[in-house]
Amino acid sequence: MNYKMVLRFIGNVLLYELLLMIIPFGVALFYGDGDANSFLYTIILMLPLALGLRSIKVKDNEMYAKEGFFTVGLSWIVIAVFGALPFVISGAIPSFIDSFFETVSGFTTTGATILSEIESLPRGILFWRSFTHWIGGMGFLIFILALAPSLGANTIYLLRAESPGPNPGKIVPKLSQTAKILYIIYFLLTIVETVLLMFAGLSFYDAIIHALGTAGTGGFSNMNSSVAAFNNPASEWIITIFMMLFGVNFALFFQIIRGSIKSFFKSEELRYYLLMIGVSIVFITINILSINGGRIEESIRQSSFQVVSIITTTGYATVDFNLWPTLSKVIILILMISGAMAGSTGGGIKTTRIVVMLKAIRRGIDRILHPKRIQSVKMDGKVVDEEIISGVFLFLGAYFVITLIGIVIVSLDGFDLITTSTAVLTSISNVGPGFEMVGPTGNFSAFSPISKIVLSFCMLAGRLEIYPMLIMFSKSIWKKTY
Amino acid sequence: MNYKMVLRFIGNVLLYELLLMIIPFGVALFYGDGDANSFLYTIILMLPLALGLRSIKVKDNEMYAKEGFFTVGLSWIVIAVFGALPFVISGAIPSFIDSFFETVSGFTTTGATILSEIESLPRGILFWRSFTHWIGGMGFLIFILALAPSLGANTIYLLRAESPGPNPGKIVPKLSQTAKILYIIYFLLTIVETVLLMFAGLSFYDAIIHALGTAGTGGFSNMNSSVAAFNNPASEWIITIFMMLFGVNFALFFQIIRGSIKSFFKSEELRYYLLMIGVSIVFITINILSINGGRIEESIRQSSFQVVSIITTTGYATVDFNLWPTLSKVIILILMISGAMAGSTGGGIKTTRIVVMLKAIRRGIDRILHPKRIQSVKMDGKVVDEEIISGVFLFLGAYFVITLIGIVIVSLDGFDLITTSTAVLTSISNVGPGFEMVGPTGNFSAFSPISKIVLSFCMLAGRLEIYPMLIMFSKSIWKKTY
Repeated sequence: MNYKMVLRFIGNVLLYELLLMIIPFGVALFYGDGDANSFLYTIILMLPLALGLRSIKVKDNEMYAKEGFFTVGLSWIVIAVFGALPFVISGAIPSFIDSFFETVSGFTTTGATILSEIESLPRGILFWRSFTHWIGGMGFLIFILALAPSLGANTIYLLRAESPGPNPGKIVPKLSQTAKILYIIYFLLTIVETVLLMFAGLSFYDAIIHALGTAGTGGFSNMNSSVAAFNNPASEWIITIFMMLFGVNFALFFQIIRGSIKSFFKSEELRYYLLMIGVSIVFITINILSINGGRIEESIRQSSFQVVSIITTTGYATVDFNLWPTLSKVIILILMISGAMAGSTGGGIKTTRIVVMLKAIRRGIDRILHPKRIQSVKMDGKVVDEEIISGVFLFLGAYFVITLIGIVIVSLDGFDLITTSTAVLTSISNVGPGFEMVGPTGNFSAFSPISKIVLSFCMLAGRLEIYPMLIMFSKSIWKKTY
Repeated sequence: MNYKMVLRFIGNVLLYELLLMIIPFGVALFYGDGDANSFLYTIILMLPLALGLRSIKVKDNEMYAKEGFFTVGLSWIVIAVFGALPFVISGAIPSFIDSFFETVSGFTTTGATILSEIESLPRGILFWRSFTHWIGGMGFLIFILALAPSLGANTIYLLRAESPGPNPGKIVPKLSQTAKILYIIYFLLTIVETVLLMFAGLSFYDAIIHALGTAGTGGFSNMNSSVAAFNNPASEWIITIFMMLFGVNFALFFQIIRGSIKSFFKSEELRYYLLMIGVSIVFITINILSINGGRIEESIRQSSFQVVSIITTTGYATVDFNLWPTLSKVIILILMISGAMAGSTGGGIKTTRIVVMLKAIRRGIDRILHPKRIQSVKMDGKVVDEEIISGVFLFLGAYFVITLIGIVIVSLDGFDLITTSTAVLTSISNVGPGFEMVGPTGNFSAFSPISKIVLSFCMLAGRLEIYPMLIMFSKSIWKKTY
């Protein structure tokens, strides 16, 4: 492992993080809730470290897959460690482990919180908390690449490790150009949502907090009872629609910009994504109708909001789905694992992988029935490479194994089986809420420090698509080569 | 689909089933509990049907994969339908759906029951219930092949579809010879266990019932509180050891008979199987020590019995693990999914598949670290074919999808999430008990008829390793070709 190169890159990561922290610093100064210093101190602490690491001399600048994946994993741990400092220094979250958990949850766009009382916290801090969603949603390293393309000689590995989905595409030939286009679409959609939420009656601050949380499919709110607090059906519908949009592969938005609306709707993954949303809404609406005293609009609105919030792995809530009937809970659980489209800001297994898996199973049956026929799995009319198919299954296997190991360790805390297993599942899928104690009205504060670290690991593994975190356990990563 | 050939084979299946039913008929006559007629009527009903189907003239006798898998799936449904009749006719289980569930649970060696009161049932009926475990354990069609090799011209597909594991081996070149050897080992081990249990103090009837249930890794008992009823530590240890033996690949026993004890212990799958058992016993023993007031022997005995009972998918119980701490429950749940060794009578995913999956994940990491190195997955020092690896993952995917679909349908009954999901899991893994309502002291009677059919399907899918049941949903299976 070429440590020097990795460390120099980490220097850049720190530099960009502290630059980004100037924004919440400004917000804190503006509102004057007394939290501005916590950002200032953090920035002052980070600056010499960032500059120091950036000045490391590197002999060999070639980045191989190993270095790429390791750099991504380490970068995310580092930004969470330093991103946690304002919470600790301001006293908003005195425990470092708790602050780390909260920051990992922010950057990975999970939205699981250890806070039970949110509304009394200073506004700069809450802005930073939600801003981490926005930064992490599209990818922090992709952000750096968009602004400083010169940093990465061979940065395809960074993009590949940080982009969600089995087949991360450059949408234009140049990587930095791709990163820029993605961020522009992302930025514009966020602005539009903020404006619409203000039209619906939210304050500017509330609107931007929820737009940031929606854009990153994160789920942090500045309200104790999440979106339910506003009791505002219009804003619920706006958030529902924008969550759905941020769960779509951004490459498809680029198609629309290029005027090719046809190819947008031709996407097989999009159709499966919409199908899953549609079917889930119908079933849950019928299932919860009697709880809502037969009120149809309310039932549709609640089921739509929750279905979209969970499948996109956002995690906002307008109702406590802990109290729903078992069928609805099972659907929520399946959506939690499934996740949104590849190339979106959402987490989970991703729609593509599920479609590829189902088609491969289907082919398995066909092979028994017609052993002599040559059969390939197709997506959007094109043959899917066999290596991609085995990659998908390998991913599913690794996902499953990490989830089980996580559940074993967290079970040592002795909470009930549902709390334990959904806490791990919602973490690795970057959703936020689970069931029972970690349901939409609960939080993660009661877990032991060990469980909080394990859950943080799961969030990172989920966000970075497993491998950048898994390789940390390999001996050969810790051998020095330069 | 060559229906005529399939139907003629079904005729043979019925004939052998009615011949086997003569044994419980004899038991019923011997004990004189008034249930003998139920077997007699069933046999009389089946005989003309069996002979009729056997007399079908078949033009083309070639059995392809399609026919093979379909024949296996259909045979198992048919033997369960007719095997259920004595329960209905005797009035032991008046509802046909319930009797069908119970019989599927018997043949698939699941051991899930809809009965709450068992001890008052006639002994012929209870013998039949446990005898189905024994027949299903090694495979009903394999039994026929052992006795009547002439029946199958190209019966490798039958063996492949009915044998557990990704790579069912012929242990000797001739199929019928393989089947015979397997059944002789199976028969002898069952006899030895019966004798040992009698030495430990059980009556002949109790001993044989529990030996049949152990051999098939089934789990039906003639006692309401399962093996706990005897309150007999010696018998608990005997059953523990024999459950463990019946979870071992029978090909390995054949190695011992051939004098090659070395190659027995060289088996990598065996070592993983023993490792999982050992680790689980240690963790659970420590975890339940305080519940047992620090009594070590009792804790070791309870954890050993339950661990082995669940990993081998037998399902006997000496204690209610519903009351165990969360860590122990999580371990039980993992063992439930994992299952025993390929080529044993146990269900679940099978140890080989888990080892292959873990090794493939490991290779995925190594490929990132050393992209230029050629890397293959090895078992017992031999390279595992890439097709077997993708087959393993495909199996895991299909297992997972069927489980989720099962959970969705069963959730309509409105029982809690744990009951619903573990009922499906324990069914597809052929274990028997789950948690909460379907825990070791509970039963499956409260489910709706639809859920009972879905759970029966899951049991069959689990026992027949998914595909023979999955192809039933393919259109092309229902097209007539001859």
